[in-house]
Amino acid sequence: MSSEPYRLSATEVLQRFSNGDLTVVEYAASLLDHIDERQPVVKAWEYIDRAQVLQQARELDKVPKEQRGPLHGDDQVELDAGSVIMLRAAGALILGKTRTTEFAATVNGPATTNPHDTGRTPGGSSSGSGAAVADFQASIALGTQTGGSTIRPGSFNGVYAMKPTWNAITREGQKIYSLILDTLGFYTRSVDDLKLLAEVFGLKDDQPPQQPSSGVKGLKLAVLKTMVWDQVGPGTRDALNKGAELLRSHGADVKEIGFPTEFAKLPAWHTIILKSDGRPSFRPEYMVGKDKLDVSLVEHVEEAHGYSRKDYMEAFDGVAALRPKWDAIAEEYDAVIVPSVPDEAPKGIESTGSAAFNSMWTALHVPVINVPGFQGEHGMPIGLSLVTPRYHDQALLEVAKAVGEVWEKEGGWASKL
Amino acid sequence: MSSEPYRLSATEVLQRFSNGDLTVVEYAASLLDHIDERQPVVKAWEYIDRAQVLQQARELDKVPKEQRGPLHGDDQVELDAGSVIMLRAAGALILGKTRTTEFAATVNGPATTNPHDTGRTPGGSSSGSGAAVADFQASIALGTQTGGSTIRPGSFNGVYAMKPTWNAITREGQKIYSLILDTLGFYTRSVDDLKLLAEVFGLKDDQPPQQPSSGVKGLKLAVLKTMVWDQVGPGTRDALNKGAELLRSHGADVKEIGFPTEFAKLPAWHTIILKSDGRPSFRPEYMVGKDKLDVSLVEHVEEAHGYSRKDYMEAFDGVAALRPKWDAIAEEYDAVIVPSVPDEAPKGIESTGSAAFNSMWTALHVPVINVPGFQGEHGMPIGLSLVTPRYHDQALLEVAKAVGEVWEKEGGWASKL
Repeated sequence: MSSEPYRLSATEVLQRFSNGDLTVVEYAASLLDHIDERQPVVKAWEYIDRAQVLQQARELDKVPKEQRGPLHGDDQVELDAGSVIMLRAAGALILGKTRTTEFAATVNGPATTNPHDTGRTPGGSSSGSGAAVADFQASIALGTQTGGSTIRPGSFNGVYAMKPTWNAITREGQKIYSLILDTLGFYTRSVDDLKLLAEVFGLKDDQPPQQPSSGVKGLKLAVLKTMVWDQVGPGTRDALNKGAELLRSHGADVKEIGFPTEFAKLPAWHTIILKSDGRPSFRPEYMVGKDKLDVSLVEHVEEAHGYSRKDYMEAFDGVAALRPKWDAIAEEYDAVIVPSVPDEAPKGIESTGSAAFNSMWTALHVPVINVPGFQGEHGMPIGLSLVTPRYHDQALLEVAKAVGEVWEKEGGWASKL
Repeated sequence: MSSEPYRLSATEVLQRFSNGDLTVVEYAASLLDHIDERQPVVKAWEYIDRAQVLQQARELDKVPKEQRGPLHGDDQVELDAGSVIMLRAAGALILGKTRTTEFAATVNGPATTNPHDTGRTPGGSSSGSGAAVADFQASIALGTQTGGSTIRPGSFNGVYAMKPTWNAITREGQKIYSLILDTLGFYTRSVDDLKLLAEVFGLKDDQPPQQPSSGVKGLKLAVLKTMVWDQVGPGTRDALNKGAELLRSHGADVKEIGFPTEFAKLPAWHTIILKSDGRPSFRPEYMVGKDKLDVSLVEHVEEAHGYSRKDYMEAFDGVAALRPKWDAIAEEYDAVIVPSVPDEAPKGIESTGSAAFNSMWTALHVPVINVPGFQGEHGMPIGLSLVTPRYHDQALLEVAKAVGEVWEKEGGWASKL
């Protein structure tokens, strides 16, 4: 079963193309057959056109080897104009558009199910992207995060999810919810595939990242439970303890830290920014068809929240002042380990779950990677997040690679798909 | 001549529609005839389709009076998806797309000329928008400002130009140059027309604006020459002196103030943010067709500027920290008067001129209105800018109305078009 092309990571697929062991058409056909079988259950796709995908694949097979881009023939999910332009320029095979919540801006789940338990939510707002990658329907998918829309589906579906530094990659063509929060994100089943994307999208740190010479040994890490720790469930609490212990047992230096008190307002400020920014962002749709909009978006435009412009500026400026302060704290460590979600994916697909543990990092603009490896009391996947200062995206990838090797092997969860 | 419909302001046109003295088709035909005559000289339009405009006009004439939007049948220049959706929903007649510099992101002038002297630049990047409104080819036009791209053409063409508070109006659909700087702006020939747009786009202050009861009398104003005053020419220097004196003679309290020293880095920080943000924003175009991009944009993507991510964050966070400080300073006045440009529009259309006096206000996110009324040594128009704290857009409109009445009447410049 593991030899079927659709199960390979993008990095593995590219290796086979390069060796001549696989054509893009063969790969596309394998994915499309698998998607045909799974779409009725997982419902990850909003739009996919078999003939169009195969046509693309035939064109890509015609490209001479020496002219192929770094993603030649790999599969991708279309979501964003600027990012999709870059993916196509790198030779990616675009499969289709996955499902999201309404404008990727509500917590009302679409029909998409969690492939590990179809009675549970895959998370949101990038519901279909997280589910498709976990279910081997694509090796790479895109998403966005305004609250927790990339990291949450990553944890719920047991895949890697990365939210890079805000504005390190263009957001051109994505529907705007909040300019200062919205961040392009992506899903893969391996850190190597995240690295492929980091190359295509041009993520670059000031210092070239150092590859840990011997796994996690010697890494300086911190554990931070955050100011919303009272919302944690047993799954994430156990994962955080176990994750830290595993790293210590492999020679990492893991220390628990807390937020300085001035960070206490971050969750409230995130809410004020989000809801206030919903007013200009959804005003065009509101003017054209208010009756077709989700009530939460109508409330943003009508300012049902009651926040004044003064409240908004206090939040906007307050978060801005915290960003360099967080960078200075995180600069002391190779990465900081934080919860990705309160617990495993909740039952039902009506709600996509809580972004409580994600929104602060979105507001602080820092890169975050969800690393899978743990499980909750019902055997559903649970991941933990690694964060760094802003523009340490490449350094974070190296740490995630080393940490992921330990957690995926010894964390206790493995995909049955 | 003044009775020809194309010469009317949007507010006047709407009044005639309402009275039944004018149809949208009559108005559209008047504008199109005038544009046909002027396009070979001013070259303000990138795209305009006579048949399509007349078809729109016929449709608008069919709308029953009680169902008409606040901009029923008014003319607009298409530039931005989110803003255009709102304009169409308000009943606006969209004429076409005006010319800009490349991606509205360079200072290399397009073919557009200044209608007051076709040997001079209309400014940029929103070159055609400023020229079209000055030349009565449209009563309203849209633009964007990342440096000085809205206010500069406003001053060079002798029209009103408004850059509202950053993110008070959605930027959805506009090409991104810098997320934290780019701001939708608009051009009109009267403050009443600016007010129409403020209504359609939903600009709202925390406090309802107070209409000055007797012109500028009693207004508390400040004059600020800024840290780039050494770049001023005789035209703007004289305009600033005259503008302040005129307001004093009409009973305003006008006081000169300076920037605190901590604002000194603002121009340099703006440059760092602009060039650094050009990297992610133009990377898609660069990957697809580097050879077709202006060299300045290629340099942004290739980081020819040499700024590190650390330099960028220092600038990004530094400007963020100054925003509430500027608000506190400006809060003491009804508005602060600052230069719009170094001087009248320079000769030649190759370069669109300097944004030195605009970039700091773009970075601080504050609303700015260019008010015309003065002239330079060659009789070309010169405007001055009024600025307030963030989210005082409606209050600023009231001050601009009162100040504009004085400057337009007694400033010494009047359009010969």
